[in-house]
Amino acid sequence: MKIRIGIAGYGNLGRGMEYAVAQNPDMELRCILTRRDPSALTPITPGVETLSAGETRWLAGEVDVMVLCGGSAADLPAQTPEFARLFNVVDSFDTHAKIPEHFEAVDRAAKSGGKTAVISAGWDPGLFSLNRLLAEAVLPRGGGYTFWGKGVSQGHSDAIRRIDGVLDARQYTVPAQSALDAARSGQSPDLSVRQKHTRECYVVAAEGADRSRIEREIVTMPHYFAEYDTTVRFISAEELAQNHAGMPHGGFVIRGGKTGDGGRHSQMIEFGLRLDSNPEFTASVLAACARAAYRLNREGVTGCKTLFDIPPACLSAQSGEELRRTIL
Amino acid sequence: MKIRIGIAGYGNLGRGMEYAVAQNPDMELRCILTRRDPSALTPITPGVETLSAGETRWLAGEVDVMVLCGGSAADLPAQTPEFARLFNVVDSFDTHAKIPEHFEAVDRAAKSGGKTAVISAGWDPGLFSLNRLLAEAVLPRGGGYTFWGKGVSQGHSDAIRRIDGVLDARQYTVPAQSALDAARSGQSPDLSVRQKHTRECYVVAAEGADRSRIEREIVTMPHYFAEYDTTVRFISAEELAQNHAGMPHGGFVIRGGKTGDGGRHSQMIEFGLRLDSNPEFTASVLAACARAAYRLNREGVTGCKTLFDIPPACLSAQSGEELRRTIL
Repeated sequence: MKIRIGIAGYGNLGRGMEYAVAQNPDMELRCILTRRDPSALTPITPGVETLSAGETRWLAGEVDVMVLCGGSAADLPAQTPEFARLFNVVDSFDTHAKIPEHFEAVDRAAKSGGKTAVISAGWDPGLFSLNRLLAEAVLPRGGGYTFWGKGVSQGHSDAIRRIDGVLDARQYTVPAQSALDAARSGQSPDLSVRQKHTRECYVVAAEGADRSRIEREIVTMPHYFAEYDTTVRFISAEELAQNHAGMPHGGFVIRGGKTGDGGRHSQMIEFGLRLDSNPEFTASVLAACARAAYRLNREGVTGCKTLFDIPPACLSAQSGEELRRTIL
Repeated sequence: MKIRIGIAGYGNLGRGMEYAVAQNPDMELRCILTRRDPSALTPITPGVETLSAGETRWLAGEVDVMVLCGGSAADLPAQTPEFARLFNVVDSFDTHAKIPEHFEAVDRAAKSGGKTAVISAGWDPGLFSLNRLLAEAVLPRGGGYTFWGKGVSQGHSDAIRRIDGVLDARQYTVPAQSALDAARSGQSPDLSVRQKHTRECYVVAAEGADRSRIEREIVTMPHYFAEYDTTVRFISAEELAQNHAGMPHGGFVIRGGKTGDGGRHSQMIEFGLRLDSNPEFTASVLAACARAAYRLNREGVTGCKTLFDIPPACLSAQSGEELRRTIL
């Protein structure tokens, strides 16, 4: 019996989820829910049903885990609790400051329906968070750092696009090599926001637009760019389409600690990701978490969980015996 | 109420454990058990009791978790099940091929006593195993690699010391840069044993010993060296003591996978350790696992566990709420 997956939301993440389900032999895609016209979708999975978001209730016995592929700002705060009453669910809610309230809302909903929810799955929050937890638990006396990139930040790209005279833009977050070296030195240095990352902007300007004004508006923009060393390069729409169409990302979680007599021994833990496709990788994590949600629910564990609460073996298609024999 | 820790076995790992307990404010060291004369031990923790290994039974109500710091060959196969009847226990059993039978024996013992055991905790098996599991679960279509070093292998150093005419020796396992580069390429290359690691031997020979015979015996030794490119350097006892007295180690778990349409996107996951002291880092993992054993037992979860079975939050001194608020 395969785990029957539903996908709610069919943007980049939803499509990545469809590919992820296809890679996992213990899963099958049951349906895709969309707020657009369902007949206009062209799924890659042969024969999969496409339904309008409102048809949810008919699916309660047909889907083991609903994977919510909407956005954290507008979709998930309402959608995840709503679906968690009827389905085991997984989401990638990534507004770090609002995770506690999202957790509470989803926990209440999932418990009321006897369902299991996994929230904030992906890589940050997600695998990066898990590595922060492990490294801090193992090396309590030390300093930890998270670096992001090199990768495309959708939010920063959008912020540039809102500037008058900008037709399109792509922003890369880039970890500074000097800061990476300092973090890896094991000396637990203090690193400022400006020291850790730089921002590279590729901008398509409208014909005749004042490029120096645009550049000034970018580099002085509070919250987004003012705290960083930012470079702006104006390129053509063709160059943007050709060289900057992908969604690469990645980064590093680094922790250095001291152990032993007077803390004389330096111990370094580092976790890194280098991703050609941010949404497809996030979807790959969601798939493993969907497996965990399904299994935990069958074991009678209900309510809201994060990667912090899931026994790692639940994420794997292999049994506990196989895992101990082959990869422990 | 602090978690009361006992340490059984006071070699490099046991002493590392003593330092690790001192770094964790929610733990206190209750006693050290030794097979030597207890009065001959000089613990670093003020006022800690030292007891002979036979006095175990008196401690059943006095120790929350007994951390077993003996060796995998001679000590743990008998010791861990024996202690698991009376105490929550943690060990670093690292004979990979025998983990399944060790698990079964410890599971029976722990369940019979209503106790919780965590076996094979450390970094490999341990954190490396956990990263192999996570990377395979997230990227099922891909290739995984584990590299060890640069670090001292005790077993290989001992094998050299048994050669006639050798007074002392230190062997380093070194990952080959070309193999690391290939693993990181994302092309899932086949890498042979010889390609992945080289072995560097520092040997102190007896005066007048036949050095070319010693070197030949090392590089042709089956299982230990014959399958590797091995270099041998003869040095003085003083140089060995001065430059090779430490126990550094480390390594990398690397997995590259393909996602998306036709597998066109490459995704790389890498976990790495760089350790000045192998035993102190292993002990740091044992301390986090001791916390988990204690908590799981209080929740009524008994029997044998590995890092694959432990919800990661159990390893951390912080509460679930704190973890969600601060590092998720």
